[in-house]
Formats: sequence, C-alpha cells, structure tokens
Amino acid sequence: MPAAALETADAAEVLSGCLHAWAADFLRSLRMHEESAGSAQTAPAAAEAVRQLRAASRRIGSALLTYRPLVDAAWADELSGELRRLSGTLAREYRCGARQARLLAALHRLAVEGVGGDRAAALLERQHTLARSRAHSAALETLVSSRFHAVADAVAVLAYEVPFAADAPRGRAGAVLVPLAERARERLVGAVEALPRTGRIPAAPTAPEGRGGHDAQSRQDAAWFEVRILLRHHRYAQEVLYAAGAPPAGAGPDVVRTDAGRGAGSGAGPGGEGGGEGGVGTREADGPAQRLAAASTALDRHRDAVEAAEAAATAARTPRIAPATAYALGVLHAGQRQEAEAARQEFRKLWQQVESGKRETAGQAL
Amino acid sequence: MPAAALETADAAEVLSGCLHAWAADFLRSLRMHEESAGSAQTAPAAAEAVRQLRAASRRIGSALLTYRPLVDAAWADELSGELRRLSGTLAREYRCGARQARLLAALHRLAVEGVGGDRAAALLERQHTLARSRAHSAALETLVSSRFHAVADAVAVLAYEVPFAADAPRGRAGAVLVPLAERARERLVGAVEALPRTGRIPAAPTAPEGRGGHDAQSRQDAAWFEVRILLRHHRYAQEVLYAAGAPPAGAGPDVVRTDAGRGAGSGAGPGGEGGGEGGVGTREADGPAQRLAAASTALDRHRDAVEAAEAAATAARTPRIAPATAYALGVLHAGQRQEAEAARQEFRKLWQQVESGKRETAGQAL
Repeated sequence: MPAAALETADAAEVLSGCLHAWAADFLRSLRMHEESAGSAQTAPAAAEAVRQLRAASRRIGSALLTYRPLVDAAWADELSGELRRLSGTLAREYRCGARQARLLAALHRLAVEGVGGDRAAALLERQHTLARSRAHSAALETLVSSRFHAVADAVAVLAYEVPFAADAPRGRAGAVLVPLAERARERLVGAVEALPRTGRIPAAPTAPEGRGGHDAQSRQDAAWFEVRILLRHHRYAQEVLYAAGAPPAGAGPDVVRTDAGRGAGSGAGPGGEGGGEGGVGTREADGPAQRLAAASTALDRHRDAVEAAEAAATAARTPRIAPATAYALGVLHAGQRQEAEAARQEFRKLWQQVESGKRETAGQAL
Repeated sequence: MPAAALETADAAEVLSGCLHAWAADFLRSLRMHEESAGSAQTAPAAAEAVRQLRAASRRIGSALLTYRPLVDAAWADELSGELRRLSGTLAREYRCGARQARLLAALHRLAVEGVGGDRAAALLERQHTLARSRAHSAALETLVSSRFHAVADAVAVLAYEVPFAADAPRGRAGAVLVPLAERARERLVGAVEALPRTGRIPAAPTAPEGRGGHDAQSRQDAAWFEVRILLRHHRYAQEVLYAAGAPPAGAGPDVVRTDAGRGAGSGAGPGGEGGGEGGVGTREADGPAQRLAAASTALDRHRDAVEAAEAAATAARTPRIAPATAYALGVLHAGQRQEAEAARQEFRKLWQQVESGKRETAGQAL
C-alpha cells in the first residue's frame, strides 16, 4: 500500500479523480457502442464496448458504496443501485454465451457415449441461443430507455463533478479513505470466515446434507456468490487507495488511465468477466493485487460452474427429451458441480496466501 | 524387514509355513461354510466363511506366483489359476451387494430432485438384487462342483506338504525369497510409474481425450486395476518375508496364525474387501505395512467407484426409463467417476510416502 502518498493526498481529490476517470470510461464506451452497435461487422467492438460499460458501472457503483460517507447519500444510493441494475442487464447476454460455450465444451470433453451427448448439446445450444438473443434485445432496449439516459446524464455530471456530502469527513486519504476501505475488507473477511466448510468431494460419505441437500446447496452457493461480490468491492476500494499513490509493483492500476486505446482484455481489470484475465497458472507476478485477482478469478469460475450446473439441470426438465439426453445432462450437471467445488478449493488456497501476505506486510509497515 | 531372521531362516521352511497356514485357513473356512450355509439365521457366518475362503485362496495363489521358482511349476500354475478363478466367482455376490449399497448411498446423498432419484434407486435395487441372487447361486454351485473338490483336495495336501521343484534354489530366506519378493515389488513399481498422469478433475479443460474419451478411460481404468493386483501380490510376498522373522511394529501378521477364533474383519488382511480394514483416516500406526494397506484400500475404493459408475451407466441404458431417472443416473455416474479420481489422488499421495519411507529404510539398513 502506498502509505506515504496516502498521507499527503487529499481524500476528496483522490476519490474524485477515480470517479472522474471511471465516468469518462463509461461515456467513452457508450460512444463506442453507439458507433458499433447494429452491424454484424462491428459486433465484436459493440460487445467490447458493453463489457467496458459494465466494468465502469461496477467500479462507480462499488466506490459509491464503499466511500458513501463522503458523498451525497441519497444521490449515491440512487446511482449505485441503477448502475448495479444496468450492469446486471448488460451482463446477461455475455454470460449466456459464456455458459453455452462452457457447457458444450464440457459435454464434448466428457464424451458421453452415443446419441445422448449429441442430443444434449443440440438441446443446450437451442435453449441458450434463444436466451442469448433475448438478452441481446433486452440490453439494446435498456440502452435506449429513458431510465438509462437518466443514468448516463448522472454519470456525465460525475465526469467533472462529484456531489460530496456537506458533512463529509475531510482530510488526507490515509485518515479518511483507508478506514472505509478497511471496512469493506472486514466485510469480505467476515463473509469468507462464515463460509460453510465442506469436504473435497461433494458426494463424500461425510457430507452433512442428506435429502434436502438441494436447499442446503443453494444456501452455500449464495454464501459463495456473496463473497465474490464482497471481494470485488474490496478490490475496487483498493484501487481508489492505489490511485492516491504508486501502485504496488505489477498491480496494473488501469484505474485512472483515460486513454481510450485499451485492447480487448487489457482493461478487464479486477471485475472483468471477459475472459481476458487469464488463468491463475499464467500469472507470474505475485503481488497482493495479483493474488486478489487470482482469488477473484476462482470465484468467477465458481459462479460460472454453479450456473452451468443449474442450466444442465433445467435443460433436463425439458418435456419429452430422450432418457439418453437426460443422462448426458446429469453427467454434465455433476461435472459442473465438481468444477464449482474445485474452484472453492482454489479460492481457499489463494485466500490463505492473501491473508498470510497481508500479515507479513502489516508486520513490515506498522 | 526382519533382516536378521531372514539370514537364518530356511527359505523352503518359511514358504512352507505360510502355505500350510493359509491352506489350513482355507479348509477351516470351508468347514465353517458347510456348517452355516443354507439357513437364513447363519447367513452372516456363511458370508464371513466365504470371505475367509477368498482371502486364503488369494494368498495361496499369489505366493505360488511370486515364489514359483521354488515349487513344482505345472502344479503351481494349475492351482493358482484355479484359486484365482474360485476367488473371483466367490467375490461376485459380495461385490454386487457392496456396489448396490454404494450406489444407493450416493444417490441418497446427492439428493437428486424429485422422482428421478427415487426411480433410479428402485431401478438399481431391482437390478442388483437380481444380479446378487444369481451370484449367490453361482457361488453355491461352485462350492459343490467336482472342479472345486479337486481344488480343495489340492489345498488339503498343501496343508501338510508343499511340492517343491526338484531344481528349486535352496538356501536362506534372505538369499532365495527376498530376490523373488523384490521382483514382485519391481513389477508393481513399474506399473505405478507407467500410470497415465491425469489432472485432478476428469473434466478439466486440459484433459487430453476429446471424443473417444471413453476408450481412453477404459484403458486408464485397466492400468489402475492392474496396479491394484500387483500391489496385492507385493503385500502377500512381504507377508511371507515377515513370516520369516518378527513383523514390523503393528504390521499385524495374521499370516501364520492358525487360531480359528478370528472376529469378522480382523482377518481381512491386506487383500480384504470386507470393509473390515477401516478408512485411511482411522489408522494411527504409520509403519510401511500400514502405508501399503492404506494404498491398497485406496485402490479398492478406486475399483469400487469405477465399477459403480459403470453400473449407473448400464442402468441408464435400460429401455423405457423416464428421463428423470436417466438424469439421476447420469449425476450418479459422474459422482462415482469423481470418487474414482479422488481415490487415484489418494493412492498417489500414499504411494509417495511408501516410496520415500522405503528409501529411508534402505539408507539405514544398507
């Protein structure tokens, strides 16, 4: 953590700087979308624009939550709620496509014998293509709605002016921002510690759930999803602190950059779902930000696998499918649940590294 | 290894002692079966008798293979082949019941939603009950066949006289038996080293098999089954060496005991499948024999899970089943494949301990 810079920089200025930059990101990606949407040739650019729009929305919304005491509360709650909703709507098409690709690839790998696998693939393809096209229409409708225009207007204001609260705490970033970021971290730590401990194999003889295990599983999944969101808030909160000074080596603070020249993936940042973050194994640097990013990737993978498992189960409830199709979907479902479990193990390992790294740093700095 | 005793004991005497004891075990369990078979009240005793008969058969057959150069080759090949066949036939009923219990327990734990799980359970129960009753009849028929009587006669001779080869190597156990036991160990080590390396998750993106993965999987399974058999031969070969002197602490040399008062499970020994060996986690002693026993248990579990997965797949091919039933069987299949993979990981871990322990011992002794 850039301790020295935090002691000299003004808290309001640091937060403003981040929000201005993200708001500019938002507006730029919106223009990029307007220029590229509606043509098949520029569809990849449009998709990239939507991805950047989502990333900027998440960062702004998250910062408004974490650093809420500094800004006008009613305005912040309204805008962050709208941004969350927007980012969720815009994510649907991408996630539907990613889930389809994940399921078909898994089905192919599993090489389920005979016609069952092929029929299951065809069924999943049909269902996902339909859902994806619906999500695409919904996203386009959202982006021309008056509700979205109101959000875009608010973000446009944010690009040059942050409505601070009259009674906002004033002072240096270290005194004002760090305690708020710490609170976001504590929420994350609490949620991680409250995660239910399960065995390595969901189907192990010692698994606590008997029948009714489905409800218990849903509750567990929800607890993990919550950790994923809290980790994202923690990372965005850290980005604001990093913006106050030099980032830790290799942390890649694409936070305050305003250049529009980002290649696909390079701007994925902490919350990116665009697949541009690379696997854990490909990371060579090993700073705290990298560890958090890897932990975040594991939680993304967990979420993807859980949702893919659910999609397989849903597809299996399609009326009048052949038993062989249903069997293949059952195999697929279990495989995705297993990948979800593996992602949990991976996260726990990475989290341990994050926490032990933090203790070392604390020992050095304090 | 009881190095001192191996240098003083006569090889032929040591081998004779073991074969006599195992032959006595065989005959005693046969009498026990004759006394208990045919009545529902004494069915558990009959089942235990069959288990002991199988264990004795496996030990005799295995020793005749490993220490073949000492004994009349034609006789040894004939008898060990017959004993292998016998033990296989007698195992079928037990394994069918164990597989049924494994599958129903897994299905219950998985808590597959709705009617699918219940129907799958009913289907598996019906199929296994039928197969089990057939296996029971086949075992009873075998035990009254003239072919079995010939085997029993040969074993009765073995209880007091071993037909040694005229040109058998003579000398101390250390010089004659140890090199033969070492050859059995080398076969095992070679087979373990030749095992295909796979990822932790069968469905991982890096899995080498694309379509046609089913054949590759069958070949892998077969390689693992082979290791299981070779490990068993290694352990029985070690038992003969241990019989030459004091066993390692806690190794439990039920090899040369002749008392008939074994409780269920206590006589399961290295090759026991009766569930009396306990889980790896329950072992406190950590000698080389315990590590081998734990590794063996992991391979038993691997075999059980692979066969259970296959049974689920077979059940799913039953004509006219409901899609929900097939789906549940698919989930079940994948879960069992995952347990097989976990057993492989467990074995690799234990095997590493066995091998590093061996190097330490060699460093001390040589």
